[in-house]
Amino acid sequence: MKGAALVGQSGGPTSVINASLAGIIEGIRERSGGRIYGMRFGIEGFLEGDLLDLSSLPDQEVGLLKATPGSALGSTRRKLTDEDLPRVRELLEKYDIRYLFLIGGNDTMETIHRVEAYCRSTGYELFGVGVPKTVDNDLVGTDHTPGYPSAARYVVLSVLQGGRLAADMQRVDKFAIHQTVGRDTGWLAAASVVAKRRPDEAPHLICVPERPLTLDRFLADVERTIASFGYCYIVVGEGVVWEDGTPVSASQEKDSFSNIEFGAMGGASAALTLHRILKDRLGLRGEFQIPESLAMCASDRVSAIDREEAYACGRRAVAYANEGRSGIMVTIERSSSNPYRFTLGSIPLEEVARKTKPMPDEFLTPEGYFVSEAFEEYIRPLVGDIERFARLF
Amino acid sequence: MKGAALVGQSGGPTSVINASLAGIIEGIRERSGGRIYGMRFGIEGFLEGDLLDLSSLPDQEVGLLKATPGSALGSTRRKLTDEDLPRVRELLEKYDIRYLFLIGGNDTMETIHRVEAYCRSTGYELFGVGVPKTVDNDLVGTDHTPGYPSAARYVVLSVLQGGRLAADMQRVDKFAIHQTVGRDTGWLAAASVVAKRRPDEAPHLICVPERPLTLDRFLADVERTIASFGYCYIVVGEGVVWEDGTPVSASQEKDSFSNIEFGAMGGASAALTLHRILKDRLGLRGEFQIPESLAMCASDRVSAIDREEAYACGRRAVAYANEGRSGIMVTIERSSSNPYRFTLGSIPLEEVARKTKPMPDEFLTPEGYFVSEAFEEYIRPLVGDIERFARLF
Repeated sequence: MKGAALVGQSGGPTSVINASLAGIIEGIRERSGGRIYGMRFGIEGFLEGDLLDLSSLPDQEVGLLKATPGSALGSTRRKLTDEDLPRVRELLEKYDIRYLFLIGGNDTMETIHRVEAYCRSTGYELFGVGVPKTVDNDLVGTDHTPGYPSAARYVVLSVLQGGRLAADMQRVDKFAIHQTVGRDTGWLAAASVVAKRRPDEAPHLICVPERPLTLDRFLADVERTIASFGYCYIVVGEGVVWEDGTPVSASQEKDSFSNIEFGAMGGASAALTLHRILKDRLGLRGEFQIPESLAMCASDRVSAIDREEAYACGRRAVAYANEGRSGIMVTIERSSSNPYRFTLGSIPLEEVARKTKPMPDEFLTPEGYFVSEAFEEYIRPLVGDIERFARLF
Repeated sequence: MKGAALVGQSGGPTSVINASLAGIIEGIRERSGGRIYGMRFGIEGFLEGDLLDLSSLPDQEVGLLKATPGSALGSTRRKLTDEDLPRVRELLEKYDIRYLFLIGGNDTMETIHRVEAYCRSTGYELFGVGVPKTVDNDLVGTDHTPGYPSAARYVVLSVLQGGRLAADMQRVDKFAIHQTVGRDTGWLAAASVVAKRRPDEAPHLICVPERPLTLDRFLADVERTIASFGYCYIVVGEGVVWEDGTPVSASQEKDSFSNIEFGAMGGASAALTLHRILKDRLGLRGEFQIPESLAMCASDRVSAIDREEAYACGRRAVAYANEGRSGIMVTIERSSSNPYRFTLGSIPLEEVARKTKPMPDEFLTPEGYFVSEAFEEYIRPLVGDIERFARLF
């Protein structure tokens, strides 16, 4: 490798995004005596010239990164504009940067793609490789995204533990609603199925954006579950919508869905809306659980496979760039589910940028709110081992 | 020990309440060949004659109980009335029950107290001993309550991890509000201080019921923190109140606090109210985290000391009853904070029943929203070791 390398992180963190960063740093160190720069706060900080020299970071700190939550370089959601491109190139030249590694989701892949294309069209040699990252698991071209298995493990543990509590407290609270992140897709909410071993155990209903909610059927399903098991544990993806496409998080009143205020930014949440509806319509007492981004940073609940893959993706990005490959994102390919085995591959950035991957039909039940056995097969090996508890009745 | 023993669990679960149950069962098994009955769903199930015979529960299942979340016997919040007492005695006689062990909070201690007094006054020999339990840590007469250290550890890990995420995401979200359970006291919210090692790290503000919020000062403190560190991480106990005594959770509108709807049952939360105020008054984007009872059942985040103490309290209750002592609750007495050492003692039930222990003044800062060094000394050994992370800047 010749010249310096630049590394950045974008979008919402995951519990293992810093493992990818460690993989990139260690990969570069093995191949290059060149400098390694980190963007502070992603492309936003880079445009301000805010670079961190990581060249002399002690090996021990790089090791600690593998278990550090958050985006250690700082993150951003700023999107690159055409007007930014000359400034980007100017800074790349200034620091003699020849390798660009960004860890992020589809917006981030778009950023590398545009920077790389701009540099190529203006005669500046730059190798740009993307490392996938998102707890939402909605990137195309990869079996799953680093970050998803660990966030899924957080959801599984929460629903397993919260489900036991809800079962034992059924004389007090008749329902619990657990909300997961995942704005457009239900991958994280669906993962909660791993918590369930018996029909009476949580989760009972899994509500995902891919399956719009019908109020009457939802109420009937809750009542039926309570009649069968004494309580109902519901997992809901934050982006779930009603049949007419209105976000559930937008509903402020029980009977009128006209007073629209969107999502958590407005202080609203799908879980809150459903909680209020169950209270008002069915007269039930229950609780809501909204851990929000805590599922994205739980360093003690990391899936071992996830950490290994996130680190490996970082290293592979460096290997690809070193081979002269550019304009690609590293992908994970599953070769076996039981035992779980994976290999790494790549996909051109233009096939990934600005696309999202919803849960396929075959992973969801045709009607109603649950997942298929095919999805259970997909998710179980990613989450890792789950402890067994005592059951007295 | 002569005759059978009866065991029950009441109120909200903790992550280690089943460790106390295991301690009681193993304590009885060592001393008695008599039967062990479990109340299903506490005194509520008992009054319905719903008993579980635990005598033949395999040792392995008893062992698993030590790490099982929830209240494995089922719980209740039903309070005993005078009219219930003859029925209770009738059932005790029917099963020849001579020992009563209840694991719970101050209401539960009141229940044992009344049952024991009623039996004594009507000539039925019964030894009743209480085992303390509550994540709220608001029982008098004990250094702390089993369940509190583990829930505190959950809060500490959440704020440590969520704090790293918030710092790294400060270009996107300017604040985060983490809500803890604890209706009348701030013990759990205060525990979040353990997550903090440097002034710029979370938590920045700790809002507890013992220190009513002044809106103007709260807003000024948030602004000052953001000016200093780029973001503000706030921990709020669910029961926090405004200066005039109104619960913060009751406030639905930014400028008028007259539209009162109390707490989570109404779908409201202190964190939601404060989130809306910061958005409306300061124009800031931020998020709220409301894990609710997940902090009460996180079996993978148990404090090792808590599990040990909860189990020991169960065993000690049996030892006391075996010595013919009755009408008492087991207590934890701290003999040293560094290294942490404890002994077990007892307190008469009438001194515990229906009382709550707020945080003492010396554990809180005189004004403003933070805790004292004395509290840090109190809480650190209970929470256990906390991992170190990498910091790049």
